[in-house]
Amino acid sequence: MSIEKILNPESIVVIGASRNPNKVGSAILKNIRSTYGGKIFVVNPFADKIQEIKSYKSITNIKEKVDVAVISIPADEVLQALKDCEKKKVEAAIIISAGFKEIGKAGSKREAELRAFLKNSKMRVIGPNCLGVISLDPPVNMTFVDPNTKIFKGTTAFISQSGALLSAIVDDASESDIGFSKIISVGNAVDIDEADLLDYLREDEKTKSIVLYLEGLNNGEKFLRSLKEATKKKPVIILKGGRSNKTSSAVMSHTGSLAGDYKAYELAFEKAGAITVSNVDDLFNFMRDASKFDIKTDEVIVATNAGGGGVITSDHINEKGLKMAQISDKTVLDLSKILPPESNLHNPIDMLGDASPDRYKNTLEVLAELKKPIIVVFSPQEMSMPIETAKVIYNIHTKKPSLPLLSVFLGGTNVEKARRFLVERALPVYEYPNEAVDIISGLHFYYSHRNSTYYRYDREKAKITSFKSKVNTFGMDAKLIFDKIGINTVNGAVISEEASLKRTAEKIGYQCVLKISSKMVAHKNKIGGVITNIKNYNELEKAFKGLSQKIRDEKINDAKLELYEDATKGKTNPVEILLGGHRDAVFGPMIALGIGGVHANEIDEVEFVLPQISDQKIKELKNTKVGKLIVSVGGHQMLDTFIAYAIRLGKFMEANKNVKDIDLNPVVISENRTVAVDFKIFVE
Amino acid sequence: MSIEKILNPESIVVIGASRNPNKVGSAILKNIRSTYGGKIFVVNPFADKIQEIKSYKSITNIKEKVDVAVISIPADEVLQALKDCEKKKVEAAIIISAGFKEIGKAGSKREAELRAFLKNSKMRVIGPNCLGVISLDPPVNMTFVDPNTKIFKGTTAFISQSGALLSAIVDDASESDIGFSKIISVGNAVDIDEADLLDYLREDEKTKSIVLYLEGLNNGEKFLRSLKEATKKKPVIILKGGRSNKTSSAVMSHTGSLAGDYKAYELAFEKAGAITVSNVDDLFNFMRDASKFDIKTDEVIVATNAGGGGVITSDHINEKGLKMAQISDKTVLDLSKILPPESNLHNPIDMLGDASPDRYKNTLEVLAELKKPIIVVFSPQEMSMPIETAKVIYNIHTKKPSLPLLSVFLGGTNVEKARRFLVERALPVYEYPNEAVDIISGLHFYYSHRNSTYYRYDREKAKITSFKSKVNTFGMDAKLIFDKIGINTVNGAVISEEASLKRTAEKIGYQCVLKISSKMVAHKNKIGGVITNIKNYNELEKAFKGLSQKIRDEKINDAKLELYEDATKGKTNPVEILLGGHRDAVFGPMIALGIGGVHANEIDEVEFVLPQISDQKIKELKNTKVGKLIVSVGGHQMLDTFIAYAIRLGKFMEANKNVKDIDLNPVVISENRTVAVDFKIFVE
Repeated sequence: MSIEKILNPESIVVIGASRNPNKVGSAILKNIRSTYGGKIFVVNPFADKIQEIKSYKSITNIKEKVDVAVISIPADEVLQALKDCEKKKVEAAIIISAGFKEIGKAGSKREAELRAFLKNSKMRVIGPNCLGVISLDPPVNMTFVDPNTKIFKGTTAFISQSGALLSAIVDDASESDIGFSKIISVGNAVDIDEADLLDYLREDEKTKSIVLYLEGLNNGEKFLRSLKEATKKKPVIILKGGRSNKTSSAVMSHTGSLAGDYKAYELAFEKAGAITVSNVDDLFNFMRDASKFDIKTDEVIVATNAGGGGVITSDHINEKGLKMAQISDKTVLDLSKILPPESNLHNPIDMLGDASPDRYKNTLEVLAELKKPIIVVFSPQEMSMPIETAKVIYNIHTKKPSLPLLSVFLGGTNVEKARRFLVERALPVYEYPNEAVDIISGLHFYYSHRNSTYYRYDREKAKITSFKSKVNTFGMDAKLIFDKIGINTVNGAVISEEASLKRTAEKIGYQCVLKISSKMVAHKNKIGGVITNIKNYNELEKAFKGLSQKIRDEKINDAKLELYEDATKGKTNPVEILLGGHRDAVFGPMIALGIGGVHANEIDEVEFVLPQISDQKIKELKNTKVGKLIVSVGGHQMLDTFIAYAIRLGKFMEANKNVKDIDLNPVVISENRTVAVDFKIFVE
Repeated sequence: MSIEKILNPESIVVIGASRNPNKVGSAILKNIRSTYGGKIFVVNPFADKIQEIKSYKSITNIKEKVDVAVISIPADEVLQALKDCEKKKVEAAIIISAGFKEIGKAGSKREAELRAFLKNSKMRVIGPNCLGVISLDPPVNMTFVDPNTKIFKGTTAFISQSGALLSAIVDDASESDIGFSKIISVGNAVDIDEADLLDYLREDEKTKSIVLYLEGLNNGEKFLRSLKEATKKKPVIILKGGRSNKTSSAVMSHTGSLAGDYKAYELAFEKAGAITVSNVDDLFNFMRDASKFDIKTDEVIVATNAGGGGVITSDHINEKGLKMAQISDKTVLDLSKILPPESNLHNPIDMLGDASPDRYKNTLEVLAELKKPIIVVFSPQEMSMPIETAKVIYNIHTKKPSLPLLSVFLGGTNVEKARRFLVERALPVYEYPNEAVDIISGLHFYYSHRNSTYYRYDREKAKITSFKSKVNTFGMDAKLIFDKIGINTVNGAVISEEASLKRTAEKIGYQCVLKISSKMVAHKNKIGGVITNIKNYNELEKAFKGLSQKIRDEKINDAKLELYEDATKGKTNPVEILLGGHRDAVFGPMIALGIGGVHANEIDEVEFVLPQISDQKIKELKNTKVGKLIVSVGGHQMLDTFIAYAIRLGKFMEANKNVKDIDLNPVVISENRTVAVDFKIFVE
């Protein structure tokens, strides 16, 4: 496998090494020389020697075998260099050079040429327009990061789509004692992309967790597959840049306008069980601690020598959707034997300001038995002993290596040595309570999603409905499709002639609703194209004449009139739900379940799910506003119905790639019946 | 003023100074001696000398004048010591001793005795159960914080309700070069409380910003008044501990159950224009930079040498509700003359990875003209020059001292010196983009609320309606009150006898609604006590008989039947709003405006406002979901109506302290009419 070769080459050639110390090609060679134990070659037609190494005019002049080429030459010479490499049987190349897709038209053409060449080549390539690649064991730094940057060996792999951010994060990581297994700048990814790297790192035994900085993806499905496989083996943490653009294309559907561009990423990451963070800051603790323990429960214990510290930590725990663990009567009794009478024996446990290291030891030994994550919050006070307390914590870790015991040492100079003591022993210690809570929350998410199953999707065996329309489809035409898909819709019929009016109405029953159906009219209500509450034939006839006149007046050539039952007839407090589908450009179909009605967009209370809904997601849906609303009127069974609908819609969209958006709004719930009252299918 | 005396005493006595270096009374004396230039006395009946200072048996033995006593003796001796101090004409005391309200019954009794004594004394007291007080100019440290803690002089005053948190924060602050003017641990506040301290610090010229850690308040109204006055002069930043308890008391009203305990604090702080933070971490940047500049606009400019850094910063800006400033054509033209062709000239402005200090200088000079906050994001890259870039930024600050120019130097060792360079010059520099964005967001909030007016409240001159009921009031009884208050309600009447049924119905009009009204029945719908959609006398008679039977069957002794018009008759898409009031135990009345209907609690989309609604708050309301919903159906005028209703409800609750909660749910909006359909007043 060539990715392994890139990260562990037996020989490297730098094509475009430079004598000028201000040039990229100088820094790369310097970094390789100062880290790498294998054979290094240099190609530069204008030099005889660079940094003490003989320089060749061309790679083809080198006699020895070369595994990997690091290319840093003008963009328009890169293709020829690759061809030379192929001739020389180089297995892989890292193209540092910029000047490709990122600079516009001319660059895109160059990039297309590279891709075309690589299609018929066995060579694997990282880049172009990247910072390069670093491996720590065995060490090799094939990047142009500042040669002064300290980089420690560790177990975190870091993949970044931004070179500048990569330099900054790697520089910063050394200060937090964070070590790496591999660091990879992907650049424009003409060949090896994020998904390939995930596949490789998943199996890499030196990597225990993977951190990604992403701005966009070319192939969402491929990435998602690799991500899901990777999270089965180790935690993956993602910072996505470019979260804030609402979808920009003009959209007719409610569902489409409610879905933001980032929403699809968020769902995809969540489904694949990746932990997402939103700050660079947040990345560091995960880089350091994500692989250290499993968080199997959302109940957290807090023990502190500072009342205020306990209060703040509880706040964060509650705000993150975690729970303060209940302390059983037995444990309270045990604690009462070792803590002074003024202590608080309930969570957060307050060991009081004068807590000695021994008091920490006794308390933590009792709490460790509960096998739940513990946050110890230490505040420096007169009489408190930070280093000795850190040692007590270290001993508990040694005795219970799998116990998630996270320490927070509040303060500065007075506790620095204690933090240092634990950091050096690779134990999770933080400066602020929210950091510990974020780690627990992220890793609990990871734990519960990694073990989540998707059986509902497979159990939903409805046959796939085919839909070949090339035009947006509304009204009865759409109703027939949803009937096939297996979503309950209101009774209705097209009124083709006035003569059939009475007969149809009697079949459907009064009170009923008469609507204009037309591809030209997206929002019937707005033009007065819906007449509700029709109670008898007189009213119906009047409505029919009125709408017929409107069709003539407004020249709606394709208009039909359709008669529907009134789904809310005689029901008290019907609830309107929005059910919809939206096809994301990168990740494909996503299904919307939200508060519906004509004001769905203002209320903007919609949950999106991917077609394959996991058990964990269903559990979470129950606690959303729309979930609670559905359960409150129809019970859990009603929510199950909607989940089945969502899965069916998803299968329908997966099978019919022409479908862009679906709106079923409202779907009315009243007294245990659910019917979609209005239905639209938008095509691409 | 005695608070000034406490912070700037001419002489101090330590009552309870100790020879034992592990005792609080030793640390206090040590801290005073190492910081204070005035006269120090010591009282300890069992010692002749402590730390080289002569010890008196009692304060009354001291001949010289003593300004302030610092008391650290057993709790049950404190009252006598205070009495001695009074005899000695000591002006103020700081009671460090614990053992009062915080330990339960015995302590509460002791604390009540202190309060009773102080009521008739001129002495002012801080504490008990506190860490003490520190002033930096002139310096005096009258606390038992670890004597090794470095504390710098600066312009931030810090008030804390948690001593342990105070030690930790002060210890940590020294590492971030944060200086203080005053540091005050309030303890149980038997005399001087947070409001008194705000009043003092507001006028203190050495204090430019005030930071508070609060867990609770005894007198919300007093605090709020002082807070509002303080924010007129300087920024106040609050971290509230104990945010996560939902209101615990059992509540019958929708409004009460939707209001959390923290909600009232949040509203009060917001109304007073205080900046709230939720992490200890977040406090530090505000401590350092809150008084450095005004943020008059929510439009932010980002300039960077790192594409990824620009992307991430934009994300934070959007997520914080700020805007990316539009760059005008003229500025783009100006930038195009000084930046390379591949640069991005639109916000975020990308000066490219090889940006020299000169390129920063030229770019920032152009951008400074726009007079909007600028975030410069620097990433260490090969060829970039951090220190020289920091110097360029320093020069711009010097030339434009009032320009909000915030620097982010991403990275670790490679940029540390540059960050240090700016920190030492008291310039705002951060490690991560979100920190700069949080500061801008907080200070913009402060700027816009500080200058907000409240004229709407005063303009609303409706006369105050008196309500003396001692029982919960529903139905027609409540309707009459709301009619007086000036809130539009549905037409209705009590049906006292069957004979009046027809006449009343004809006055109200069909279709109509018949309801049971009873103090015993909070949720009429649940027992089938509401019959809607009554279209004629036949149906009405049937309904009347049905409900009368129900009253007899269920023995609802106080029941009346009430007939109402159907507010939604013939309306399409009526919208249901919840309008309500809730009296918070600390801050008094708050008014709720939310999405209404029987499912209001599940949808849980409610905005709370205080009775005095500022212009700024009205602006913000328009962008909430409920604001958008109201505007979408009734326009801005309709939102104005609701705001007037909210103000009237607030005035009503302010005038009638017996009113605990009010529910007007739903208030139906349809076709420019607004009517409350159901109304309840709950009393305490």
